[in-house]
Amino acid sequence: MVDAVGTPAPGGNTPTPGSGLRRRHLLFGGAAAGVGALAAAGAQLAGTAAPRMQVASEDGANGARTVPFYADRQAGVGTAAQAHGVFIALDLKTGTTPERLKSLLKLLSDDAANLTQGKPALADTEGELAVRPARLTVTFGFGPGLFRVLGPERVQAGPLDLPAFSIDKLVPELSGGDLLLQICADDPLTVAHAQRMLLKDSRSFTTVRWVQSGFRRAYGTEQSGTTMRNLFGQVDGTSNPAPGSAEFERVVYGDDSMPAWTPNGTSLVIRRISMNLDKWDELDKSGREEAVGRRLANGAPLTGKSELDEPDFAAVTPVGFPVIADFSHLRRARPEDSSQRIFRRAFNYDSVPGTGGVSDSGLIFASYQADVQRQFVPIQRRLDELDLLNLWTTPVGSAVFAIPPGCAPGGFVGDGLFA
Amino acid sequence: MVDAVGTPAPGGNTPTPGSGLRRRHLLFGGAAAGVGALAAAGAQLAGTAAPRMQVASEDGANGARTVPFYADRQAGVGTAAQAHGVFIALDLKTGTTPERLKSLLKLLSDDAANLTQGKPALADTEGELAVRPARLTVTFGFGPGLFRVLGPERVQAGPLDLPAFSIDKLVPELSGGDLLLQICADDPLTVAHAQRMLLKDSRSFTTVRWVQSGFRRAYGTEQSGTTMRNLFGQVDGTSNPAPGSAEFERVVYGDDSMPAWTPNGTSLVIRRISMNLDKWDELDKSGREEAVGRRLANGAPLTGKSELDEPDFAAVTPVGFPVIADFSHLRRARPEDSSQRIFRRAFNYDSVPGTGGVSDSGLIFASYQADVQRQFVPIQRRLDELDLLNLWTTPVGSAVFAIPPGCAPGGFVGDGLFA
Repeated sequence: MVDAVGTPAPGGNTPTPGSGLRRRHLLFGGAAAGVGALAAAGAQLAGTAAPRMQVASEDGANGARTVPFYADRQAGVGTAAQAHGVFIALDLKTGTTPERLKSLLKLLSDDAANLTQGKPALADTEGELAVRPARLTVTFGFGPGLFRVLGPERVQAGPLDLPAFSIDKLVPELSGGDLLLQICADDPLTVAHAQRMLLKDSRSFTTVRWVQSGFRRAYGTEQSGTTMRNLFGQVDGTSNPAPGSAEFERVVYGDDSMPAWTPNGTSLVIRRISMNLDKWDELDKSGREEAVGRRLANGAPLTGKSELDEPDFAAVTPVGFPVIADFSHLRRARPEDSSQRIFRRAFNYDSVPGTGGVSDSGLIFASYQADVQRQFVPIQRRLDELDLLNLWTTPVGSAVFAIPPGCAPGGFVGDGLFA
Repeated sequence: MVDAVGTPAPGGNTPTPGSGLRRRHLLFGGAAAGVGALAAAGAQLAGTAAPRMQVASEDGANGARTVPFYADRQAGVGTAAQAHGVFIALDLKTGTTPERLKSLLKLLSDDAANLTQGKPALADTEGELAVRPARLTVTFGFGPGLFRVLGPERVQAGPLDLPAFSIDKLVPELSGGDLLLQICADDPLTVAHAQRMLLKDSRSFTTVRWVQSGFRRAYGTEQSGTTMRNLFGQVDGTSNPAPGSAEFERVVYGDDSMPAWTPNGTSLVIRRISMNLDKWDELDKSGREEAVGRRLANGAPLTGKSELDEPDFAAVTPVGFPVIADFSHLRRARPEDSSQRIFRRAFNYDSVPGTGGVSDSGLIFASYQADVQRQFVPIQRRLDELDLLNLWTTPVGSAVFAIPPGCAPGGFVGDGLFA
């Protein structure tokens, strides 16, 4: 996905598929940093210096940047992650017919197509707010309830549920949902306006189940491609398949040995991970680094010097303990099997603290993969069994959605399911 | 307040005091757009074309920009408004002594001084999050309860309360407070980290009374100096005294005829204005324009062509009605008296909608003035009596704080009160 304006997109230096960028990866440290980080990573791995990008941007130019809506695949997956993201789960009203659902999806797709291109929605009463899209993307996800409306013959291949994990303390009001709207842009007003327009479209068809708002670094704050940090201060997302790479294709959209539920479709797991910052504060730097298996300063594995160094799991300390501990997140999240990889696109959240509290913070963990059961579940099972980070993190929300393919002009997202 | 790095700040084109920029102003349309809008406004008023700024910024440079902390006046008032702002009201614990209060203010000032300059706080356990200040400012406000701790002889001049307004539906959990932290930056992660550090400092001294998070356009979305729009789609902030101008000095920091409570001090009224977007949607464009007295497209008064045209309140329609209606916000908010002016620095908010709802949106209206009673109250009284916008807006939170002067290195904000 490239920007539609002439200026180079931040992090738009996409490696082509098959560029040979293949490394081993991990979960909690697995990047959702988008294209740029991996482009830089690729350059570094290839032994060349990652160029320091110079974006001579016209004042306000990022507001005009657009990401195409009509395409084989939905935007907002391989798109370099924007600064702001809101995830909204809707429940279809009881008695929704396939015809009604079709009307809703058509309405939403039409408005998303307009809004993402900087045009007002059809019934936009605040059209002036639509003119700065700032890389707005709208991505639709379909939950189990939506497939039930379509009828049993339409229920797609992979089951859209997760097994129970012992670490979970799930709140029903932050879990599940029939229809997901993922709205991302570099501007918070753009996101708020798009959210309002799409919720207005949905009002007579659905009820709002949950809304989760998150953020990453703002446009202009950091050099393009810098790996994001989460609210624990960790470099969060060193390794992620690079959009455009063969590995990204395989992980997100599947291959012959592990196909996605439909061509150009994928799936999304959203986990709301509450991070106990107060308890984390009690841990000193070396304790934190041991828990993660990486250095805080630059994200390097404890056996390496820089963020992208390959961890050496065999290395031991002078007294014989593993340098990267058995219970460390890095070791536990690392897939044993190359099929167990995911693509992350996470956002931090920082909500108003409850009574007496100082923070309600965490991560909206968003994981894309061709097959939830074969890719996401084994990693999560391993982390559920043992991961020192579990002491400070608690999954409080969980939802799984099938991400249908994109659509052509005149079509709508999900139209293939009504054919 | 200027940026500490070499690149020009967005909207950094501050008119000097006494540049003769004097216009009549209004409340709801009164700008919190910061320096740039008024610089442009000044140029237009002077009959010259406002130059289209070209900021050739290095990738990520905005993250390195800093606003000085140590100064005669606190930052975050005249500073061009950042993209993100959080307002936090704290209550001092029962039995707080002046000595304890002094310790708290010293701690907070030291950490604010570091964080705003891109350095970790004293006990910063996530110091890596501190390195991109992105124009971070921390502004402290003192409520009535704080002055009570200092003793009766320290209670400052102007009373820090507002009369009851008939339109108010105030929620105690969104009103009042002893100590305000106003934290603003162009980056949401920077704001979240600073918030966390300062709340950690405060934890043993205070409880959190309320937290309100808001946003404006992101850095890079719009040409510097573009007047912000609120969630009604209105150009919100056409007129605001320009920081650096003589009028700004008079309005915010007072003059001989209307002094502030202390030299280089001012006051801040925070009103949380809930905006009923659903009801607003029922109004067509001409109805909206009549309610406000301005055109939606460009914010021009209904008697003019462009945003900065002076409204003609005498103009009538062919059938004899005023073009700018008597009940319009523009006419009602317009001060009859030049002492009744304020400086606005508002942020939009968009919270998670309640059960069954589609939005919980509005404006964190922040008004600075030398004297709350003589400047803010008369305007608000007039709007309370009659303002068509009251049909769609409801004040749900209200708080008033004295803004003490800034401090020198080694000092702390409020140190003059302990002298």
